[in-house]
Amino acid sequence: MARNTQVSADQNAPPVTQMLARFVATHPGYLERGWSDAVDHEAHRTLLNWLGCAVGAAQHEAARAALAAVKLLQPASQASVLGRTDKVDMASAALLNGISSHTFDFDDTHLKTIIHPAGPVASALLALAERTQASGRDLIDALVLGIDVSCRVGNAIYPDHYDRGWHITGSTGTLGAAAGCARLIKLDTQKATMALGIAASQPVGMREQFGSMTKPFHPGAAARAGLMSALLAQQGFTASARALEAARGFMQTVSTKNDWNEISSELGQRFEISFNSYKPFACGIVIHPAIDACCQLRDQGVAPDQVERIELRAHSLVLELTGKKEPQDGLQAKFSVYHGCAAGLTFGRAAEAEFSDEIVRRSDMQALRRKVFATVDDSIDEASADVTAVLRDGRHVHVFVEHAIGSLQRPMSDEQLEAKFHGLTDQALGREPTQRLLKACWRVGHSPDVRELVDLACPSVD
Amino acid sequence: MARNTQVSADQNAPPVTQMLARFVATHPGYLERGWSDAVDHEAHRTLLNWLGCAVGAAQHEAARAALAAVKLLQPASQASVLGRTDKVDMASAALLNGISSHTFDFDDTHLKTIIHPAGPVASALLALAERTQASGRDLIDALVLGIDVSCRVGNAIYPDHYDRGWHITGSTGTLGAAAGCARLIKLDTQKATMALGIAASQPVGMREQFGSMTKPFHPGAAARAGLMSALLAQQGFTASARALEAARGFMQTVSTKNDWNEISSELGQRFEISFNSYKPFACGIVIHPAIDACCQLRDQGVAPDQVERIELRAHSLVLELTGKKEPQDGLQAKFSVYHGCAAGLTFGRAAEAEFSDEIVRRSDMQALRRKVFATVDDSIDEASADVTAVLRDGRHVHVFVEHAIGSLQRPMSDEQLEAKFHGLTDQALGREPTQRLLKACWRVGHSPDVRELVDLACPSVD
Repeated sequence: MARNTQVSADQNAPPVTQMLARFVATHPGYLERGWSDAVDHEAHRTLLNWLGCAVGAAQHEAARAALAAVKLLQPASQASVLGRTDKVDMASAALLNGISSHTFDFDDTHLKTIIHPAGPVASALLALAERTQASGRDLIDALVLGIDVSCRVGNAIYPDHYDRGWHITGSTGTLGAAAGCARLIKLDTQKATMALGIAASQPVGMREQFGSMTKPFHPGAAARAGLMSALLAQQGFTASARALEAARGFMQTVSTKNDWNEISSELGQRFEISFNSYKPFACGIVIHPAIDACCQLRDQGVAPDQVERIELRAHSLVLELTGKKEPQDGLQAKFSVYHGCAAGLTFGRAAEAEFSDEIVRRSDMQALRRKVFATVDDSIDEASADVTAVLRDGRHVHVFVEHAIGSLQRPMSDEQLEAKFHGLTDQALGREPTQRLLKACWRVGHSPDVRELVDLACPSVD
Repeated sequence: MARNTQVSADQNAPPVTQMLARFVATHPGYLERGWSDAVDHEAHRTLLNWLGCAVGAAQHEAARAALAAVKLLQPASQASVLGRTDKVDMASAALLNGISSHTFDFDDTHLKTIIHPAGPVASALLALAERTQASGRDLIDALVLGIDVSCRVGNAIYPDHYDRGWHITGSTGTLGAAAGCARLIKLDTQKATMALGIAASQPVGMREQFGSMTKPFHPGAAARAGLMSALLAQQGFTASARALEAARGFMQTVSTKNDWNEISSELGQRFEISFNSYKPFACGIVIHPAIDACCQLRDQGVAPDQVERIELRAHSLVLELTGKKEPQDGLQAKFSVYHGCAAGLTFGRAAEAEFSDEIVRRSDMQALRRKVFATVDDSIDEASADVTAVLRDGRHVHVFVEHAIGSLQRPMSDEQLEAKFHGLTDQALGREPTQRLLKACWRVGHSPDVRELVDLACPSVD
């Protein structure tokens, strides 16, 4: 007990737990001009993208196994499992929807921290909102504020926190979910402080889990823990009011970098949800520029059977991470820039379907992948790609992508988000119901009861 | 993404996740001579001490608030909240019983790591055993193995892990709970590996929470997470099979000290539950020698009204941590060696009741505390105390305690554990029902269904 302990502890950290709690409890909502129309629209885009991912993966084996475990608890029918007909208690719904929303790794990305912010926050909020019959307006307000909390904490501790092994989506997600839920059930500053405090003891997720079902489990478990933290605080459960910043609190325990200023700077003026991005392609972001380039070749009329070879020049990192030349199944194909190029040129897209085992194993795809020749060129940025199609008739068609579609510089349009959504949900819900769901999603800020939205996100029982 | 990451990562760590999973899945139980009678008896003592603590704190405000939050989920009636008439789903029962068992800080201690091992492991196991109608024998076997897992992981990462801010009871407890539950539901090595892997992403607890309800929340949340990890694995959910030891796995992420040998050494031969200890006094262990000394003075016939003054010599740490001379309430009194001495001399004990606000505020206790004079003497070990009572008639009565009662050197006897148990549960259950409960606890290894024990640990409904 007399042992010297960690020397670097900052004993004078600013009271960021209370600062964030007060922000969440008291910042005016959108209708009171708490933020701009642009921020509010981005929140709708975030919700829509998250919802499509959650519905799309609802039949995945990870979702099935998690639901089977939850059913052993004989849960009450309080909230919906998106994309399914099952109802479970609201905390389990947060867990399950969080898992399915991240299963395809197709959800949103806060690029500065590589946090996937909607998974934990939206999953907790929609389940709680359904149970409490909250309005769509309150849901969106809570989403803006909850995501601000997790991403600001992320900004303060990234990259050290991520480098040492934490899956930052789950470790900061509990805080964002607790903050959002505190807002939704209208906790005051004192109780919101307790909610953040309870959440601070429950970071979720190690990077070693990447490639297993436990990766998408992280945002799900964070959603559940955050939701329960808010309910515990509501019922009078207590925590340290300095749980985030204290020497033995969350932030100093999980990171040696703690830039407190990232939390306080422009709080309530700059909203981190503004910097959210959405993936057009269902794979790691490092392949996106090459896929984008091949989609553009296709748009310019280049067809696979015209192609003699594809010459790709890219940063060394691209080949290091995604250099698998002969992928054998869908999972391997997600780490193959060769398959990405073949899919882009053949289909003009690379959503979850284009990474199915069936498509990956098609002989035309195998042949096309073998025509892709990649050269390392570190003068090309990681975010860029240089692609030349050499055609049988001798022509060269060249495309240079500086920033891929889906980046902050070239965000997906609302229409592109809708197309992605259709690709994820049409099979589960049908095309026409998906259109109604999309419409409800864009208009959710005007809905008096989020159950209107939720009902459309589940297949009808008969 | 090209950034250099933590340099110290050990890429060649031994496969301890699978090693522990195989141990849990395949080690012979007590009836197959998997461990000695002494180890098995210690497991019964561990269960008994944990059960008394859980029943004793069942009406505490922390337990009430947590139960109120859980009830918002409308839980099924699957398992008992100990010391109450409420039934909840088994995962919530694990949470709630884990919270109450640590609320008085009166539970067991694995001294090498200061882990309180029973809280997470026993709370998960008893809830699961009640729901699955397991035998008492299977419960005890799972308890021995589950505690071995959490304490061995603790040995490997302590003290660095604790020093940086983790409440090691909750952070390793998830693993112990998952391991025990995996055993109880008879997962094979492969699925037990997955259970440990899922649990590895869910460490719970920061030391900053000490003094708030979130401290006892840690073993409760760890119990719940561990139980759910086993159920998820049972249903086919996957995790990394190297989730503990990998460079970005649990152990290297939460500690820079990783002594892998602590996990493999004498696995299946030496059982960490053998080194479990139980507190005779309801306060921090650093005051125990002084209280013990004052109890011994009382046994020697020294009465408070005979005392002119008490001269205490103790290590500086004792005064540093518990030097509060005039405590105003029960919580403050737990950090007052002066109150500890006064309680020992007056009552011959210092259980939860002797730290009540009422007793702390009594005028005779105030007066007696003022008669205690403490002197720092660093030649005296932290585990020892030197006390002299100077009586009004001029006599000096001297007691030197080298190791306090409750230490590994002077463990509490079974009878002393029973007396402690009565002090915790008589009020809630009645003295005679407590005696039946104690009997059932000692004999649980012979019980075909743990519900016999559980029913006795809850007050009858009418």
